[in-house]
Amino acid sequence: MATGTSASESRRTRDAEATQRAILDAAIDAFARSGYDGASTRDIARDAGIDPRLITRYFGSKEALFERAVEETYRHPLMMVPGNNRAVAAALLGDAPMEQAKGLLLTIRSAGSERAVEIMRDHLERHYQRDLADALTGPDPGTRAALLIAVCTGVQMQRNVLGNRALRTSDSDLIVDRLAAALDLIGASDAPAPEGGRST
Amino acid sequence: MATGTSASESRRTRDAEATQRAILDAAIDAFARSGYDGASTRDIARDAGIDPRLITRYFGSKEALFERAVEETYRHPLMMVPGNNRAVAAALLGDAPMEQAKGLLLTIRSAGSERAVEIMRDHLERHYQRDLADALTGPDPGTRAALLIAVCTGVQMQRNVLGNRALRTSDSDLIVDRLAAALDLIGASDAPAPEGGRST
Repeated sequence: MATGTSASESRRTRDAEATQRAILDAAIDAFARSGYDGASTRDIARDAGIDPRLITRYFGSKEALFERAVEETYRHPLMMVPGNNRAVAAALLGDAPMEQAKGLLLTIRSAGSERAVEIMRDHLERHYQRDLADALTGPDPGTRAALLIAVCTGVQMQRNVLGNRALRTSDSDLIVDRLAAALDLIGASDAPAPEGGRST
Repeated sequence: MATGTSASESRRTRDAEATQRAILDAAIDAFARSGYDGASTRDIARDAGIDPRLITRYFGSKEALFERAVEETYRHPLMMVPGNNRAVAAALLGDAPMEQAKGLLLTIRSAGSERAVEIMRDHLERHYQRDLADALTGPDPGTRAALLIAVCTGVQMQRNVLGNRALRTSDSDLIVDRLAAALDLIGASDAPAPEGGRST
């Protein structure tokens, strides 16, 4: 491969990057739809429009591809820090697509696989949860960060995975306010303030 | 079967009840461990120590058996009503076995199956969630009940299914208090009171 001109090398690099990107996008969609066990590399290759052997070449294995999908979808923090929680609550209860949604769907749908669970837990604890903990002040930020993530996971589990109709049809101010206030309360540096800035 | 004496009929009834109970207990454990798709009636029969054909005789099908398992594990309400939430939070974050735990594990581990999701959602909405909504006062009790259930689902998902270490190792008063206060806030009839009865 080192025999090409620099122009064709450059094009090959761009092609390789585009292929890797297409594989990763297809993998994220497949894992979010079918979970770790349910998504096959054959299906992912078909969705990406590439030869299945390219997955092995670029990522090594389904497990390694899953790790990259977790890394990619956990990257954008929900930022459940006080001040941002109303937007988080509105996004969780609204129909607008949310970048983070795929990460949570992938998580829930892969929860039956022991290896996937290890990969997801380790990544969450080392990155997303740690970053959120760093953004919190007050006692025991690590556990409070985990609790914030748990609350959001639960809302998405009931709303988007189990399809709870009460949560699907209500993005009323009242419910968004309650969820935002609950997130504020967990994220607050101290016991909740008497006037928590809620509009109710 | 109508030829037996009344004493042997009575014994057969007791035997049949014991067998059905053994099948249902084994099914609940299997669905909580492996999910709807992962648990086979063959394994359930083996765990119950009975002939697999007895599952068909007493329950009709794996789907019908799953419905009974959902009914059974969703029966005991968590009672996430104001006043009881600290006990709920302590149970969710503690190591004591909780009767409701199997219902939530069964739910999460079966979330990949479309038919299982329908069964669980319908049952939850018609029974557990409705009963909890009936126990709440104030606006939009149905959605607030769904939100309470979602929060508890998320904690159990992160703690017991994904094994988040921050939530597994912390049942500190602070975290129990925060979770209880968040549940109180969602369940309260009105905007959260300035003094919420929290000890922090």
